[in-house]
Amino acid sequence: MLRHSFSLTRYFKPTRTVYTTTCLVHTKQDKSFQLKTPKGTRDYNEKEMAVRQDLFTTITRIFERHGAVTIDTPVFEMRDILSGKYGEDSKLIYDLADQGGEACSLRYDLTVPFARYLAMQGKKEAQQIKRYQIAKVYRRDQPIMTKGRLREFYQCDFDIAGVYDPLIPDAEVLKVLCDTLDQVKIPFHIKLNHRQILDGLFQVCGVPSDKIRTISSAVDKLDKLEWEQVKQEMTLEKGLDPLIADQIGDYIQRFQDQDTDTLLARLEQDSRLMSHAGAAQGIADLKLLLEFLAIYNIHDRVKLDLSLARGLDYYTGIIYEAVAEKTEGVGSIAAGGRYDHLVGMFSGTNKAGKPKTIPCVGVSIGVERLFSILMSRQKLSDIKSNKTQVYVISVGDGLLKERMELVRELWDAGIQASFMQKNKPKLEKQWVACEKEHIPFAVIIGQDELNHGQVRIKDMRNKDIEQGGGSLFNRKDMITELKQKITTIAH
Amino acid sequence: MLRHSFSLTRYFKPTRTVYTTTCLVHTKQDKSFQLKTPKGTRDYNEKEMAVRQDLFTTITRIFERHGAVTIDTPVFEMRDILSGKYGEDSKLIYDLADQGGEACSLRYDLTVPFARYLAMQGKKEAQQIKRYQIAKVYRRDQPIMTKGRLREFYQCDFDIAGVYDPLIPDAEVLKVLCDTLDQVKIPFHIKLNHRQILDGLFQVCGVPSDKIRTISSAVDKLDKLEWEQVKQEMTLEKGLDPLIADQIGDYIQRFQDQDTDTLLARLEQDSRLMSHAGAAQGIADLKLLLEFLAIYNIHDRVKLDLSLARGLDYYTGIIYEAVAEKTEGVGSIAAGGRYDHLVGMFSGTNKAGKPKTIPCVGVSIGVERLFSILMSRQKLSDIKSNKTQVYVISVGDGLLKERMELVRELWDAGIQASFMQKNKPKLEKQWVACEKEHIPFAVIIGQDELNHGQVRIKDMRNKDIEQGGGSLFNRKDMITELKQKITTIAH
Repeated sequence: MLRHSFSLTRYFKPTRTVYTTTCLVHTKQDKSFQLKTPKGTRDYNEKEMAVRQDLFTTITRIFERHGAVTIDTPVFEMRDILSGKYGEDSKLIYDLADQGGEACSLRYDLTVPFARYLAMQGKKEAQQIKRYQIAKVYRRDQPIMTKGRLREFYQCDFDIAGVYDPLIPDAEVLKVLCDTLDQVKIPFHIKLNHRQILDGLFQVCGVPSDKIRTISSAVDKLDKLEWEQVKQEMTLEKGLDPLIADQIGDYIQRFQDQDTDTLLARLEQDSRLMSHAGAAQGIADLKLLLEFLAIYNIHDRVKLDLSLARGLDYYTGIIYEAVAEKTEGVGSIAAGGRYDHLVGMFSGTNKAGKPKTIPCVGVSIGVERLFSILMSRQKLSDIKSNKTQVYVISVGDGLLKERMELVRELWDAGIQASFMQKNKPKLEKQWVACEKEHIPFAVIIGQDELNHGQVRIKDMRNKDIEQGGGSLFNRKDMITELKQKITTIAH
Repeated sequence: MLRHSFSLTRYFKPTRTVYTTTCLVHTKQDKSFQLKTPKGTRDYNEKEMAVRQDLFTTITRIFERHGAVTIDTPVFEMRDILSGKYGEDSKLIYDLADQGGEACSLRYDLTVPFARYLAMQGKKEAQQIKRYQIAKVYRRDQPIMTKGRLREFYQCDFDIAGVYDPLIPDAEVLKVLCDTLDQVKIPFHIKLNHRQILDGLFQVCGVPSDKIRTISSAVDKLDKLEWEQVKQEMTLEKGLDPLIADQIGDYIQRFQDQDTDTLLARLEQDSRLMSHAGAAQGIADLKLLLEFLAIYNIHDRVKLDLSLARGLDYYTGIIYEAVAEKTEGVGSIAAGGRYDHLVGMFSGTNKAGKPKTIPCVGVSIGVERLFSILMSRQKLSDIKSNKTQVYVISVGDGLLKERMELVRELWDAGIQASFMQKNKPKLEKQWVACEKEHIPFAVIIGQDELNHGQVRIKDMRNKDIEQGGGSLFNRKDMITELKQKITTIAH
């Protein structure tokens, strides 16, 4: 669900250049080709993956703490499924080639596939589900790799589907969002708005119904553009009467610096807006939501912002966007909202002719941006990318088979172990490998140790000279000894 | 790397029907479309995902035990990268549509992208890496969903890249494979062969060089077809002299029931075969490999099988395929081998004009087949798909805000907790939800408990009537008490 704020590229050029690794390769057939990943995609090396997996684990634990289960859906969907759900962004959808099969497209987000999934489950199973999904999505967007904006990227979605009492699931989704961002220690605040307030505001100002979504997506750019630029888009590009545009500008700008409670109170006093049933409902929703957020201790993390519109067509109720504080330099890091009619677009109607819909609310965490922030905070060489706890080292004449025998014992005991895959490795090189891979313990054997049925165990983190070549143990005690040592450093 | 044995569909029709869920939907615009996932793809619900994630975790732990790190590569690659690496299977590659960008295709396996990755890393970084990757791959194949043959499916790959002393990494890859299949308790054996023995055998029989790969892929079908059918493919379809075909058949069938050591000894006595340098090298390789496998206690898991050829073009040394015992009904469950020249196809030549290649060996575990087996072993309703440990229940008048307050305390203490998101839920429905989701503990509040600053904690697994509505605790002790109880059931 995370908005990708693509349309800004029309106005701004990225200040940092996009980095790609590429070279020309000549193959045997003398046909040369570019050795690179496709534009807007990238590889992640083992150090980056260690950080990414930690991040995914952290987020998963929070989702699970709230009782969420996970599902999986295909990377591509029937093209019809994705059509008409993303407003102006639909042109960014990737299609598969026609190879004599069905018309398919790569998923643009995880929300529409989730709604399609719910519609296909049949009534009973899908009535109520809290689900998370951590998976790749695809957008033919202009990439800015340094800011974590790619064509292939992960989203982490948490959604609550089903009929519940009002605003209770909405509050929990925001709690999940706050807990996640707190856990990764990224300072943020949440912009909050309501689609029905926004639609009401547009309607009372006189925006024609068929222009509401497109005017809405113009307003959404106010976080990056001046009002005059947005007004130009509304009037020149989208043909809105300038007088109507001015009224919208007046509403949105007048209250810009008010705190949430004051702003809500002001809106409640606006009889013109309150005469619109949807807007009045939206204001009542926000008031109840704020009560629940107070119970969850996150009332102060949200701020009502009438300029937040969110481009996607499917939102119907509260909408929100988490923004990292300026120091982090990445802007929006998570977004979502309520989408009560999306499932109904897929599931058809019941016998009474009513759409079989399932109300939903959710959030999508822009994990690539969190990853950019986390990477900028640490040195690559300090990251341990393997889980190895023990390195088996030989002193002297190689002892390959003896090392293999030892490492097999360790593996069979469930201990993460490695050795240098050479017949006669140099001692020095074995030490270097052990240290470079941040392996905490070394098991050392020489002919002497073998003859006496012993091994040496050395704590590699302990730079104490007295430790020397480690301490001698009976080989039969090796596993017990190591398991004990490993327990002491387990987190 | 797992071969998908697609070409058999030319000969056999699946005995069980492919299951798909699909229905026609009429949208507001009165345009109807099919509600389904694309052919050969499927959704996984939360119970299936719980089993899949357990499986992935089990496999990951074994990979990590051997010091493997993980990397990530894009789901699609530049089309040139994938071309010409898969022999007859190349026609199964999925292409992306031309939308005014680069020509891209979905990855067919994880091996070619890994080789491309290594070539792009530059010499220093990529000299030696043990990496695993668990990710989706794509094949426009004829699906047999019930047997775990899909168009979108996961592969779990473990590979060792780099210059080591001979057969040491090959032995470790086989150890990893055996440990994995043992861990998921699937009875299996491993067919083993060597590309150079096979190529030598073809050459001494008189197969022209340009026909070696295509004849090889015909031989590979001997596990499913009679010799006569394979011979027909060789001679009628592929234009091989029938006398040459007979010689090949003679070699392969003569030794079919010999044990590995006997068969190797026989081949060593075959002066015609041993005159071929490649074949002699292959036999020496296998002998050394078997010595190492004995150290790793897995000598008895492998069986030399001259009919194993494996279709992919990139193999250069030992090749293997793990086959589940007949009772499991799925056939090949993992496969792999040595591919020493694949990186060189991407990385070009060094200053001396030699290809900058990196020798590699690996295995790909067909995790969809393992998943099919694991699912057939258990009842869906017995699977706990959430991690929730505590369910907060109210007796009497709803107490919504009090339940929210309690659950917030539990979340903030890191406890997985849930509650019914209704203002006034019925007691009965709360019990049912708690039991259905296999949640072990309930925290129960009523007005009485609230007035006395107490909560009741009930062990839901304990059907003892004396437990009744649970035991009373001071609310301030709730977290400590629950943490203790949860520890006792943690695995």
